[in-house]
Amino acid sequence: MRNFQYGTPTRLIFGKNAIENLPEVLRSLGKKVLLVYGGGSIKKIGLYQKVMELLKDFQVTELSGVQPNPKYESVLAGVKICKEQSIDVVLAVGGGSVIDCSKAVAAGAKYDGDVWDFLAHKAQCKAALPIVDVLTLAATGSEFDAACVISKTETNEKTGFFSKSIFPKVSILDPEYTFSVSPLQTAAGAADGMSHVMEQYFTEESSLLTDGLCEATIRALMANAKVAVKEPENYEARAELMLACSFGCNGILSLGNSRSGWPCHALEHALSAYYDIAHGVGLAIVTPHWMQLVLKKHPEKAMPLFAKYGVNVFGLDSAMDKKQLAEKAIEATAAFYKEIGLPCTLKEAGIDNSRIDEMARHIADNEGLDKAYMALDLADIKEILTASL
Amino acid sequence: MRNFQYGTPTRLIFGKNAIENLPEVLRSLGKKVLLVYGGGSIKKIGLYQKVMELLKDFQVTELSGVQPNPKYESVLAGVKICKEQSIDVVLAVGGGSVIDCSKAVAAGAKYDGDVWDFLAHKAQCKAALPIVDVLTLAATGSEFDAACVISKTETNEKTGFFSKSIFPKVSILDPEYTFSVSPLQTAAGAADGMSHVMEQYFTEESSLLTDGLCEATIRALMANAKVAVKEPENYEARAELMLACSFGCNGILSLGNSRSGWPCHALEHALSAYYDIAHGVGLAIVTPHWMQLVLKKHPEKAMPLFAKYGVNVFGLDSAMDKKQLAEKAIEATAAFYKEIGLPCTLKEAGIDNSRIDEMARHIADNEGLDKAYMALDLADIKEILTASL
Repeated sequence: MRNFQYGTPTRLIFGKNAIENLPEVLRSLGKKVLLVYGGGSIKKIGLYQKVMELLKDFQVTELSGVQPNPKYESVLAGVKICKEQSIDVVLAVGGGSVIDCSKAVAAGAKYDGDVWDFLAHKAQCKAALPIVDVLTLAATGSEFDAACVISKTETNEKTGFFSKSIFPKVSILDPEYTFSVSPLQTAAGAADGMSHVMEQYFTEESSLLTDGLCEATIRALMANAKVAVKEPENYEARAELMLACSFGCNGILSLGNSRSGWPCHALEHALSAYYDIAHGVGLAIVTPHWMQLVLKKHPEKAMPLFAKYGVNVFGLDSAMDKKQLAEKAIEATAAFYKEIGLPCTLKEAGIDNSRIDEMARHIADNEGLDKAYMALDLADIKEILTASL
Repeated sequence: MRNFQYGTPTRLIFGKNAIENLPEVLRSLGKKVLLVYGGGSIKKIGLYQKVMELLKDFQVTELSGVQPNPKYESVLAGVKICKEQSIDVVLAVGGGSVIDCSKAVAAGAKYDGDVWDFLAHKAQCKAALPIVDVLTLAATGSEFDAACVISKTETNEKTGFFSKSIFPKVSILDPEYTFSVSPLQTAAGAADGMSHVMEQYFTEESSLLTDGLCEATIRALMANAKVAVKEPENYEARAELMLACSFGCNGILSLGNSRSGWPCHALEHALSAYYDIAHGVGLAIVTPHWMQLVLKKHPEKAMPLFAKYGVNVFGLDSAMDKKQLAEKAIEATAAFYKEIGLPCTLKEAGIDNSRIDEMARHIADNEGLDKAYMALDLADIKEILTASL
């Protein structure tokens, strides 16, 4: 087990009507609130109205229109408001994109320079306004971690930063706010949550403990995703998806593990930066092809990992030989994504072969996959993207 | 899934030489340190000397001699020092008993009344001095939770309290500091850690996610306990035990679960209050007998829980009928405790039948087991204790 430091100070308030705690939570943080949200979905489900009613004693300024794969322009707009109006607290109401945008805004509000410095890793974020969120999508885990990912459209850049300062103070998680999430978005969110765990699990050094925690989380995500895409108002399924996704990115599932390099995320970041597709959709498409390639290229590393995954996640018969187990585990993974209704090819996601070379080059140049545990070079990246077509 | 609130602000610094971070950690908390420890074991392993060397720029006052099942006298002595010397931070160096004592001291230092008010639930602890610990025993999980348990010898009372204020700020966990823990203490610590998980797992409402997290933690504790009792300097085994035990009591493994009433802890608290035996030893003795009794008295509740545990923790064949699975799971649990060298009977732990009635009455009157998920009355409690003889 490797040395590590771990701490997640975020308080989760989870369950039906958890939002009733919002005024009390905000009261301890200030009076001037920047309310950040996306399109109209929070209005459709009555959440916007509920929040405004609860915030009647606060001074609320709004930053709306935050898009999936949140854009740097929204961050800049938010920072400007925070500085001009001396905002006390940033309240994100939405999914991971809204929370990520809010984190970058909160960091930028306490920084004299350009917030892109943090995203370009030219400066370290050391302070931020307090962040509170009301989650409406089970996917990114941003509600329980210290990371944010932001996209710059004109340069096809999608990059992130970590800072203890951007842990949400409180995350309000009411599974009922995800009842209206479409089957496709639900599936994409589950695929995102699964990928976070798989990226930590498919690595060189792990323990019986972390393996078991990861496997349990993946199994729970899969079982509950299958239910939620069919029964959108199944509270238990929505609740397990929400909770399991929250564990995805704060490191609790892989304490002491070595780092894999998060290859599928690296591959997908280019897809959603170039084509603005849903992150979870991109992950579901590339993951089985990444597995195929590393099983071929790094069999001594990949085979035992995928075989273990096949047995402990899919219940495959451990008496089979490791190669067969690994292959069947890849098939089962792809079959699961298909079963929950996700696109299986780039073509289905509206992406053709015209920019494969460009994206592969961008990934090879920017994502450090040559240093991943199962290293990938430009040719490998191109092969995975091409196989994904 | 039930509504819940969760937050564990403690920072874990885990691994070899983690203690080198101690001066920096303390520097942010103050200058005057109360160093709390137990007998001479931290001197034998050179840890005391190391701590004193690292604290050469601090003003250190010592509170030593904290016993297992920490006594209220130690707490009072510590509170007196904190108040008289305006201590800034309490540094616990030891196992769960030392940390629990330090928590009560830190709480008492910020309270005008008698700290027993918190333990008797007459007052709520709302502030405490900051607590930092260096852990030397994998067992209680006190290093990562907000609880402490204290004993009053003259009245055979053993009771605890919870407060957000007593989460350690930082816990320094170096598995090497547990290399010198005897096989018996190692086994008792693992049994304590296991019991924490089982008390959360054997309950009415749980989820696929929490079941999987609990099962993974129990499996990791069992596998690594078997190694550590034979190979005391096996770093990986010590590391997994330490980390897995840390998850025991902060609720992360059972988010959204209903509460079981922690019956085995309730039973054991009387044993260690009356006879001052190791908590983990008492738990290992009573647990299989508690399982036997509830399987007989509450089969509709206990049988499916124990059957699931048998399949997912011990790998029993799920094709067996549930009753057989439950019985075999109980046998496997008892066999495991025996395999790692724990006493299997109260007699082996030096306890005869002379105070069974008195202890049973004490438990029935004070532990609320009539309200546990699988309720126990006085006769049940007496039956479990008698079967444990």
